[in-house]
Amino acid sequence: MTAVIGTDPTHATTGTPREGAFGNASHLVCRACGAQSPLGPFYACMECFGPLEVGYDFPTITRAQIEAGPKSIWRYQPLLPVPADIASFRSTDPGFTRLVDAGNLAAELGLRKFHVKDDSGNPTHSFKDRVVAVALSAARELGLQVLACPSTGNLANAVAAAAARAGIRSVVLVPSNLEQQKILASAVYDTTLIAIEGNYDDVNKLASEIAGEEEGWAFVNVNVRPYYAEGSKTLAFEIAEQLGWRLPDQIVVPVASGSQLTKIDKGITELIKLGLVEEKPVRIFGAQATGCSPVSQAYRDGYDVVRPVKPDTIAKSLAIGNPADGPYVLDVARRTGGRIVDVDDETVVANIRRLARTEGIFGETAGGVTLGCVAKLIADGDLDPDAETVMINSGDGLKTLDAVAGQVGPKTTIRPSYEQFADFWKGLEA
Amino acid sequence: MTAVIGTDPTHATTGTPREGAFGNASHLVCRACGAQSPLGPFYACMECFGPLEVGYDFPTITRAQIEAGPKSIWRYQPLLPVPADIASFRSTDPGFTRLVDAGNLAAELGLRKFHVKDDSGNPTHSFKDRVVAVALSAARELGLQVLACPSTGNLANAVAAAAARAGIRSVVLVPSNLEQQKILASAVYDTTLIAIEGNYDDVNKLASEIAGEEEGWAFVNVNVRPYYAEGSKTLAFEIAEQLGWRLPDQIVVPVASGSQLTKIDKGITELIKLGLVEEKPVRIFGAQATGCSPVSQAYRDGYDVVRPVKPDTIAKSLAIGNPADGPYVLDVARRTGGRIVDVDDETVVANIRRLARTEGIFGETAGGVTLGCVAKLIADGDLDPDAETVMINSGDGLKTLDAVAGQVGPKTTIRPSYEQFADFWKGLEA
Ligand SMILES: Cc1ncc(COP(=O)(O)O)c(C=O)c1O
Ligand SMILES: Cc1ncc(COP(=O)(O)O)c(C=O)c1O
Ligand SMILES: [Zn+2]
Ligand SMILES: [Zn+2]
Repeated sequence: MTAVIGTDPTHATTGTPREGAFGNASHLVCRACGAQSPLGPFYACMECFGPLEVGYDFPTITRAQIEAGPKSIWRYQPLLPVPADIASFRSTDPGFTRLVDAGNLAAELGLRKFHVKDDSGNPTHSFKDRVVAVALSAARELGLQVLACPSTGNLANAVAAAAARAGIRSVVLVPSNLEQQKILASAVYDTTLIAIEGNYDDVNKLASEIAGEEEGWAFVNVNVRPYYAEGSKTLAFEIAEQLGWRLPDQIVVPVASGSQLTKIDKGITELIKLGLVEEKPVRIFGAQATGCSPVSQAYRDGYDVVRPVKPDTIAKSLAIGNPADGPYVLDVARRTGGRIVDVDDETVVANIRRLARTEGIFGETAGGVTLGCVAKLIADGDLDPDAETVMINSGDGLKTLDAVAGQVGPKTTIRPSYEQFADFWKGLEA
Repeated sequence: MTAVIGTDPTHATTGTPREGAFGNASHLVCRACGAQSPLGPFYACMECFGPLEVGYDFPTITRAQIEAGPKSIWRYQPLLPVPADIASFRSTDPGFTRLVDAGNLAAELGLRKFHVKDDSGNPTHSFKDRVVAVALSAARELGLQVLACPSTGNLANAVAAAAARAGIRSVVLVPSNLEQQKILASAVYDTTLIAIEGNYDDVNKLASEIAGEEEGWAFVNVNVRPYYAEGSKTLAFEIAEQLGWRLPDQIVVPVASGSQLTKIDKGITELIKLGLVEEKPVRIFGAQATGCSPVSQAYRDGYDVVRPVKPDTIAKSLAIGNPADGPYVLDVARRTGGRIVDVDDETVVANIRRLARTEGIFGETAGGVTLGCVAKLIADGDLDPDAETVMINSGDGLKTLDAVAGQVGPKTTIRPSYEQFADFWKGLEA
């Protein structure tokens, strides 16, 4: 996380969190050097400036205990850095979205068993509601007063909605060239939306500066990022529970900053460690758009670090040219026997349409990227077609309508007359 | 249902449905004269052309049995005209959406207890996924081959998605002036989308003609309407279950054709009859946009029937000038001590924004209509502020962005510089 260098990770000063504020979480740990820090508003290692993540001291956790919980991510409270009474706070209560048994797609792709984890069913229609809900809890427990983010769009929607519901102030920073849908679908929550003349990486850098200067701000994906990121583990938890407490063999995940992918891996590891699922290898694959594929390029070139790129793709939600978790994504893919690949924008659109046509799921560009990469991985012989595969559909097609606008529409326009209809229909049948 | 007069309700000829094709449903019954018909592709009474609805021969049904079912409307299979193995067929598996404890709104409106049933979480983000899923089952069991509808938009989205997933053909008819979002979000599923130069009532009439002429078509809201309509009962079922198997005191429901409102009432009656909830009176209120308020007008004028109007409102999803269930809506409202009211377009937009600002829920125009009517009913003294109240948010703001487009947006646009940010922020604080 280069962005934090030069800022003081101990800067944000808040009161001491209450007992149990972070549930079973016990400390923060540096992903680079392993040094531990106490739970607090910290995100960079005091030894090496490496990114911190949450460590736990787990008690025994049972399936029955989880199943008795609410039908949202809060059923996994014992595995998240949130307090036991989390469900009593106002949040958007995301999660527990459909795991669609995608038989039509499986047949078309030649896969034995294929599922789509459809996160378009979340409150603001992307997986970002998961991470924001956990970040909001951390912000509250840490006494921070403004919920904020730099965003490629979906995160802004999720932050603005969650802050509205929680009754706290929010500030969201987005590139000014963002899809109009995502701008309106943030602004409607009465957030302070600031458009930035620049790309996401410029916006992200500005957010880090603000986080370093202003008191009491929780930039969900900057200074409370360790907590935020834990929210993505719930994707792994739900997939396992919805498969009957069983892990799939292969998972394909979209990659922007890389947080989601690395935390799906972490979630799997925790499920196994806690004995909630039987241990087995799960191969994790990453999906990028060619126009912003720094992690895929680094994978291909055999590098451990990621060289930043200038994004140029219709998949704006994934357009992060300097991904904070890039090296960790590479590590997960290599360690699990996965791979990171990319597909071009034309393929993205074709696969938005394929997902809709075959399974009735209208994903956003990120979904097109991910399905496109599934098809590519099959063609390249990287995905085992006989193994059980899951892909993440992380967002909603209604937010990226421009991607399909030129391509689909009415098959005809007629007057309200049966004759006109019958003529058209006969022509269609012929 | 004037549309059916002149068409032969026994027209569609299909094979005999298999044993158990309609679950515990036992017959169709005329809502006008009470005459019974067998289960089949019938929608109008052979005696009086009145609209048919589904009757049941219920066995004992327990809460535990329902709670053990899938997390979708199929948990209520024993109360729906669908087979016991319904969950094994490919559908979009809608339902089990959030019931949001809307404490912020309650405080703002002066209500003691207020919940929003948020159906924007359904697969195509409106309550229409519920009715379409049941209609699709009926179409399949009746051997019909084309899933079709006239639609104000949301229904088209739901039909196209469900047909794609089920692997059957679909044809959706919409007014050509529909929101671009709703057109694209149907067309993407590769349906045969036909734009009609006319309003919804013209489209609906054409659909009835086609239903009368073509073999094997299931117009979900025309010739399989009795089955379709039952899907809306699941809103009542879920509200009761999510309240802990308890009924609220007051429910406010948007009204277009009036099907949803009347079936919420039917669902409540069935829950009580089956002993799944304690008997209590539930007052049911209807919400319309002033620019298309034929039922509200009839209510105000004390009429039993509804005089058709020419719709002129931004709430296009509710723009049905000649509502099929109008008289039954009037009956439910009067019988339960409810009322039908309307609010103007400006109020609709203000209440879309209010729902977003207070609870982080971005509803479509129909949601703005419904919340606007809640506020009006409180102001008029019609809703008891001390009684527990539920409103239905039946659709998604992403499909009606034009309603808010002129009103919300970035608070500022700046270069990615901390100084520019700090200037803006200081100005805001001052
Ligand atoms: C729809 C969607 N999918 C996937 C991602 C990738 O998330 P991450 O930054 O965790 O890699 C994003 C990030 O913005 C997103 O909006
Ligand atoms: C979002 C939404 N809400 C409510 C309704 C009203 O439904 P009904 O025709 O059952 O009254 C519709 C109908 O199209 C709708 O699209
Ligand atoms: Zn370190
Ligand atoms: Zn009759």
